[in-house]
Amino acid sequence: MHKVEVYRLPMGSPDDLSALEALLDNGTIDARDIIAVLCKNEGNGCVNDFTRGFTTLAVKVLLSERLGISRDEVANRVALVMSGGTEGVMTPHMNVFVRKQVADRGGIPAGEKRLAAGIAFTRDFKPEELGRMAQVREVARAVREAMAEAGISDPADVHFVQIKCPLLTADRIEDALRRGETVAVNDTYKSMGYSRGASALGVAVALGEIPESAVSDEKICSDWSLYSTVASTSAGVELQKCEIIVMGNSSEAASDLVIGHDVMRDPIDMQAVLRAMKAAGLRFDVLPGEGELDRIVNVLAKAEAPSTGQVRGRRNTMLDDSDINHTRSARAVVNAVIAAVTGDPMVYVSGGAEHQGPDGGGPVAVIARAD
Amino acid sequence: MHKVEVYRLPMGSPDDLSALEALLDNGTIDARDIIAVLCKNEGNGCVNDFTRGFTTLAVKVLLSERLGISRDEVANRVALVMSGGTEGVMTPHMNVFVRKQVADRGGIPAGEKRLAAGIAFTRDFKPEELGRMAQVREVARAVREAMAEAGISDPADVHFVQIKCPLLTADRIEDALRRGETVAVNDTYKSMGYSRGASALGVAVALGEIPESAVSDEKICSDWSLYSTVASTSAGVELQKCEIIVMGNSSEAASDLVIGHDVMRDPIDMQAVLRAMKAAGLRFDVLPGEGELDRIVNVLAKAEAPSTGQVRGRRNTMLDDSDINHTRSARAVVNAVIAAVTGDPMVYVSGGAEHQGPDGGGPVAVIARAD
Amino acid sequence: MHKVEVYRLPMGSPDDLSALEALLDNGTIDARDIIAVLCKNEGNGCVNDFTRGFTTLAVKVLLSERLGISRDEVANRVALVMSGGTEGVMTPHMNVFVRKQVADRGGIPAGEKRLAAGIAFTRDFKPEELGRMAQVREVARAVREAMAEAGISDPADVHFVQIKCPLLTADRIEDALRRGETVAVNDTYKSMGYSRGASALGVAVALGEIPESAVSDEKICSDWSLYSTVASTSAGVELQKCEIIVMGNSSEAASDLVIGHDVMRDPIDMQAVLRAMKAAGLRFDVLPGEGELDRIVNVLAKAEAPSTGQVRGRRNTMLDDSDINHTRSARAVVNAVIAAVTGDPMVYVSGGAEHQGPDGGGPVAVIARAD
Amino acid sequence: MHKVEVYRLPMGSPDDLSALEALLDNGTIDARDIIAVLCKNEGNGCVNDFTRGFTTLAVKVLLSERLGISRDEVANRVALVMSGGTEGVMTPHMNVFVRKQVADRGGIPAGEKRLAAGIAFTRDFKPEELGRMAQVREVARAVREAMAEAGISDPADVHFVQIKCPLLTADRIEDALRRGETVAVNDTYKSMGYSRGASALGVAVALGEIPESAVSDEKICSDWSLYSTVASTSAGVELQKCEIIVMGNSSEAASDLVIGHDVMRDPIDMQAVLRAMKAAGLRFDVLPGEGELDRIVNVLAKAEAPSTGQVRGRRNTMLDDSDINHTRSARAVVNAVIAAVTGDPMVYVSGGAEHQGPDGGGPVAVIARAD
Repeated sequence: MHKVEVYRLPMGSPDDLSALEALLDNGTIDARDIIAVLCKNEGNGCVNDFTRGFTTLAVKVLLSERLGISRDEVANRVALVMSGGTEGVMTPHMNVFVRKQVADRGGIPAGEKRLAAGIAFTRDFKPEELGRMAQVREVARAVREAMAEAGISDPADVHFVQIKCPLLTADRIEDALRRGETVAVNDTYKSMGYSRGASALGVAVALGEIPESAVSDEKICSDWSLYSTVASTSAGVELQKCEIIVMGNSSEAASDLVIGHDVMRDPIDMQAVLRAMKAAGLRFDVLPGEGELDRIVNVLAKAEAPSTGQVRGRRNTMLDDSDINHTRSARAVVNAVIAAVTGDPMVYVSGGAEHQGPDGGGPVAVIARAD
Repeated sequence: MHKVEVYRLPMGSPDDLSALEALLDNGTIDARDIIAVLCKNEGNGCVNDFTRGFTTLAVKVLLSERLGISRDEVANRVALVMSGGTEGVMTPHMNVFVRKQVADRGGIPAGEKRLAAGIAFTRDFKPEELGRMAQVREVARAVREAMAEAGISDPADVHFVQIKCPLLTADRIEDALRRGETVAVNDTYKSMGYSRGASALGVAVALGEIPESAVSDEKICSDWSLYSTVASTSAGVELQKCEIIVMGNSSEAASDLVIGHDVMRDPIDMQAVLRAMKAAGLRFDVLPGEGELDRIVNVLAKAEAPSTGQVRGRRNTMLDDSDINHTRSARAVVNAVIAAVTGDPMVYVSGGAEHQGPDGGGPVAVIARAD
Repeated sequence: MHKVEVYRLPMGSPDDLSALEALLDNGTIDARDIIAVLCKNEGNGCVNDFTRGFTTLAVKVLLSERLGISRDEVANRVALVMSGGTEGVMTPHMNVFVRKQVADRGGIPAGEKRLAAGIAFTRDFKPEELGRMAQVREVARAVREAMAEAGISDPADVHFVQIKCPLLTADRIEDALRRGETVAVNDTYKSMGYSRGASALGVAVALGEIPESAVSDEKICSDWSLYSTVASTSAGVELQKCEIIVMGNSSEAASDLVIGHDVMRDPIDMQAVLRAMKAAGLRFDVLPGEGELDRIVNVLAKAEAPSTGQVRGRRNTMLDDSDINHTRSARAVVNAVIAAVTGDPMVYVSGGAEHQGPDGGGPVAVIARAD
Repeated sequence: MHKVEVYRLPMGSPDDLSALEALLDNGTIDARDIIAVLCKNEGNGCVNDFTRGFTTLAVKVLLSERLGISRDEVANRVALVMSGGTEGVMTPHMNVFVRKQVADRGGIPAGEKRLAAGIAFTRDFKPEELGRMAQVREVARAVREAMAEAGISDPADVHFVQIKCPLLTADRIEDALRRGETVAVNDTYKSMGYSRGASALGVAVALGEIPESAVSDEKICSDWSLYSTVASTSAGVELQKCEIIVMGNSSEAASDLVIGHDVMRDPIDMQAVLRAMKAAGLRFDVLPGEGELDRIVNVLAKAEAPSTGQVRGRRNTMLDDSDINHTRSARAVVNAVIAAVTGDPMVYVSGGAEHQGPDGGGPVAVIARAD
C-alpha cells in the first residue's frame, strides 16, 4: 500500500537544492522514496533554455551522492521533469514526489480515494517515429504501465499526466534521412510541438478520451479538436525516450492528499481554476477562503496563446510579438490568473499545449490535503 | 453643463483609427467635442517604443483634416496620451474622451455624482526642473486647473489622473550642464522614472493626499512611502510639458457614466479590482455577474514589479530577467488579473508606477455606466 | 537623358525627416524628382516592426504637402521601401533616389556606364498567388519594365534590385480558403519568407540568372541552389503588390555615380565586400584607403543566418536563440563586417535572404562616385 | 621552468566537455596541469545567465572525478572563469590553460620571450569593499602575485589579465547596511559594472598604467579617462573573491606560444585587431594570409557600446534598445570584426568594458604559435 507525498520547494536558482537537502538531512524525505522531481525552471522555456539541464545535473549529482549510485542510475530510477519558464510573478520551484510503502490506510474511510502516483518510461524513439503514431502508441502503453504502478485502474481517476519527451535535432533528422526514412517535421523547434502533441494524444488514447482509430499521422498537430484533458507534456533535447508521471486518485492509496482537475478554455478562464479546486475537495461557494486555500499543495496548469490571436473576441499581440516568444506570455497570464485566486504565485504553469485541452486553453489540476 | 462620454475602441495596429473614423463619419462623435485620446499601444512601452509616436501622428493627421486646423493646433487642443505595452492578452485600444455642452442633467437625480473630466497642460519644463520640486509644484497647479475645468471641487471626487510627462535626453542634459545647472539624474532611461514620480507626487499634493512640505527633491524616487492613490503617469520623449487628464465625479455633470477607484497592493490583488468595481457602482456580493460586468466601459490600472523581487513572500524573476523588461511582465500580470474578473482583456494597464500606489502595487479605476 | 542622385541621410527617429526637409528647403532636391525612398528603420525588422509604417506615413505626409497631392498619390508615384532592423552599430538612415532629366552627359566619356535607376509596380496579388509562380512571373515582368524605365538593356548591367512585397495575413488566407483556393503556406510569419523568395526568383528569371523553367512552386523556399545575386527583397503588411527599384549602370545615364556588386558567401565574407568596392570603381590593392572610401555613397547588403547553424565550420547560436530573432543577429554581423572596412556604420543591411545569394550569404552592392 | 599550452575547444552546449574529456582520455592533457578554464558561454551574459554556473558545475564534477578531489578543492586549484554571451556568429568554446614543468626551453633562442601564465585569488571581499579602493588595492596585490607565479617581472610583458569578480546581491547589500556600512551602489545589476571597473583599475595600478594615487572611490565608474589596456573583467554571482589569470610573455618560459595585444578604440576598429596580430608575431603587410592565420590559437577581446550612442560620429541604437541588452549587441559586432579578419568565429569576446580600454573600445589580445 502506497502513501504519496508531494513537497513543493522554492528554488533560489536552477541549482539551488537547499530546501530538498534540508528535508533529506532532517529525515523528512528518504532519498530512496523519491520517484519524481518536477521543476518549474527560470529559463525561457524555449530552445536555448539551459536551466533545465542545469537543474537536472544538480539533482543527479545530489541524489547519486545520497543514494550511492551513479548519475545514470539516478536517471533510470527517478523521473526528472524540468519545465522552463517562470514569467510574470511565477516562482521557480520544484515538486518532489515521494512514495512510501505503508502497512494500512490509517483512518482513511474505505472507498475514499486518495492521491496515487506512478512513473514509467517508454523505449527510446527513432527520429522517424517522433510526432507520429509510433510515439502515440508507445506513450499510450507506458501511461497504462504507470497507471498500474500507481494502482489506478479506472481512467476517470487519472487527473494529470506529466510527460517529458524528446525532440528532433539536426543530427537525428540527418540520421533518419541517411537511412532512407522521413521525419514528421524538418524544423527542430517545430519538432518540440509534434513530440508534445503525439505524447498528449498517447495519453488521450490510453485513457479512452479518444479512440486510437481517430488519430493518424496527419491529425497530429493539425486537428486541434482532438485533445486530452489531463495531459501536460514538455519536450527536451536531453532524452530519446518519454518519461511519464501519472497522478490520480485511488481507493488503495494511503495518502493525505487528493487531486482533481478541470479544463481552462482560454488563458483567463478563472472559473475552470475554481472548478478544479472544488474537484480536489475544496469547499466554497464563489471564491475559496484562506482556510481552504491553505489545503492546496500545488496547482498544475498548461498555458497557450490561442491560434486565432484573440481571447474572448479581443485581439492580443502574443503571436505577433517577435521580441517575446508567445509561450512566455501565455505562462505569465495563466500563472497570474491562478495566483489571483490562490494568493500564491508559486504554482506550476507550463507552456505549449498541443492536443492538451482546446486551442488556447489547457488542463488545470489541483493537489490538496484531504479535509 | 457637461456630459462626458468615453469610447473604448479596438485598434488593429498603431495607425488603425478605423473605429474612430466610423464614429466621426456616422455622427456619433463630433470631432470638436474630443478633449482627450488615451491609447494602449502595442509597442514595448520602453525607450524604443515608436508605436506611441506613430499613433500620435496618425491621430493628429486625422483630426487636423476633420477639424480643418494644423497638426500643432490639434496637439494644443486635445490631450494625446499614448501608453505603450500590451503584453499577455491585453488588447491594443484607444479611449476617446468626448465632452459635450448640454442644457440639463436629464433625469439624473440631483446630488448624484456623474463622470466629469478636464484637461490641462503645464508650462514647458527646463531640464534641470524635471524630477524635482519645480515639476511637482507645476503639475499640482495644473491638476487643480484641470479639476476646475472639469467642475470638480472636492479632491475626494477625483478618481484617476492620467499624465503624460517629458524625460531627459542626452541633448537636454547637455543643455542644462552647459548653463551650469545640474539634473536630477544623468541617465536617460532613469529620467523617465523621475519624471513619472515627480508628476505623481504633484497629483498627490494637488489632491491633499500629501502635504507639499512632506516632499523634497531627495524624496522623489527614493521615499516610496509617499504616493498618490489616483495618479497614473507615463513619460515620452515627444513633449517638454505635461499633459493632464483628470477624471472624477461631479454633481454638476450630466454624464451617463460614473468612475470609482481603489489601490492594488501587489500585481495579483484581485480584491482591489473588485472593490474598484463596487466603487464605480457595480452591485455584487463576491464576483460580479455578466449583467453588471456589461456596465463597465473600461478599467484603468498601473502595474509594477515589486522592488523586493517578491510577491506575497514568493520570489519572482521579473527584475532579474535581462531578456524581458520588468515593466512588460508586470503589465501582463495585472491585465490578466483584471481580465479574469471582467472576462474582457481590452482593459488599460500601464507600467512604471513610481509614487503611484505602494511599491509593487498601483491605482485601479473603473468607469461604468450608471444604473 | 537621366541623371540619378542618391542622398544618404541619417535619421534620429523613424519620423525624423529633417535632413530631407533641409535639402528640399534649400533646393538641393526638387520633390518632383524623387523616385524612391529606401529606409533602414530602427525597429526589430520582424512582424511587429511598426517603425516601417511610421516612416511611411511621415514621408507620405511630407511629400503630399510638398507636391500638393494626396498621400495615396505619393504612394503611386514614389517607391517607398522600408527595411527594419539596425542592430549592432548600424545607423538608421534613408536613401533618397532622385532622377533628373538632363540635356547631355556633360564630360562623361562616351561608353562609360553610370548609375541608372528605374521603378515599377506589379499588379495586386491574390493571396493564392503569393509565394508561387504567379508572383515569380509578374515580378519578372515588372523588373523588366523597371529596367526599361531605367534605360538598362543588358541584364549584366543590373547590380541591385530592391523589392518590397506583400505577405499573407490571417484575413487574406481566410479569403483564399473561402473561395476554395489554397495558399503557399498557412503561417503568417513564414509567408514573409515565401513572398521574399518568390520575388527574388522573379528577379533571377528577369535577368536570366535562372531559366523560368527551372523554377516551380515546389522549389520556392525549398531548393536553395536557385538564387539571384542582385535581388534584395523585404516583405511588409502594408501592400498587396510589389514595389521594385532597379539599380544598374547605363551608357545612357548622366550620373556622377556608379554601382557594382558581388556576393557574400557567408556573414563574415569581407573579401566579397572588397570585390564589390572594386566593382564600383574603387582603386586599391588589399584594403581601400580613406580617399577611395570617401567616394562611397552607400553599401547595400543582405544578411542571413546559415541554415546549418555554422559559419566556416564553427557553430553559432543564432538559430537556437529564442530571445533574439536570428535575422537581427545576422544584420548586426554583416553591418559590422562592412563598417570595419568602410569605417562608416551607416550602411544598408537587410535581413531574410531567401533565394538572394547562397544559403547564409547574400548580395552586396556599392554605390560610389565615379573618379 | 614552465611550458604553457592553450587548448581552444568547441562546446556543443554549456555542459559539453567532450572535447576536453577526449584530450584527458588520450593523455594530451594531464588534469593535474590544468591551471585555468576560460569559457565563452552561450547564455545572455547578463544577470540571469545560468550557462556560466552550469558549465562551472560540469567542469567541477569532471575534474573532481579525474583528480580524485572534492568539487570545492577543484575551485581552489583551478581558475574557472565563465563569460556569457556568444551573440552573432560567435562560437561557444572553452580555453583550457595547461602549465607543465619542463627541464629546459628546448631550441628556443635565449632571450626570446614566450607565453607565461599565472593565477591568483584575492581574499573574500566584504560588500562595502566592492567597487571601491579596497577592491582596487587587493586586486593589484593579487595581480602582482599572479605575475610572480607566471615568472613575469616586467609589467610591459603582461598582455591580458582576465578577472572574474563578485557582485552585490540584495542579501549582501542588506548585510552591509545592517552593520552600519554603505555600499558603492544600491543596484544589483549596476554593482556588476562597479566590480568590473574596480578590478580593471586594480590591474592598471598593478602594472603601473595608472598611479594608485590617481584612483579614488569617486573615480570608479565615473572617470573613464582612467583605464587598463590589458584588463578583461567579468562579474558573477557565484563568488566573493576575485579569480585572476595573468597572461604575458617571459624569457623564462618554454612555451611554443606567444601573446601580444593592442587596444580597439571602438567596436569596428579592425586596425587594432591587425596590430595585435603583429604584436603576437604574425607577419603580413595589410591583411594576414591563411598561413599566418593558422598560427593563431585564439583572439581575446572586450566589447562595449560607446556611451555617446555613436560610432565614428554615426548614431546607433544599442543603448536605446529595450529588447536587446547593449552588451549583447556589442559582442556581436566585435566578434564579427575579428572573425572577418581571422576567418574563424570561434574567438573570445566579452562584454562590459568599464575601465578596460577607452569608452566604447577595449583590449584585444592574440595568442599565436611562435614561428
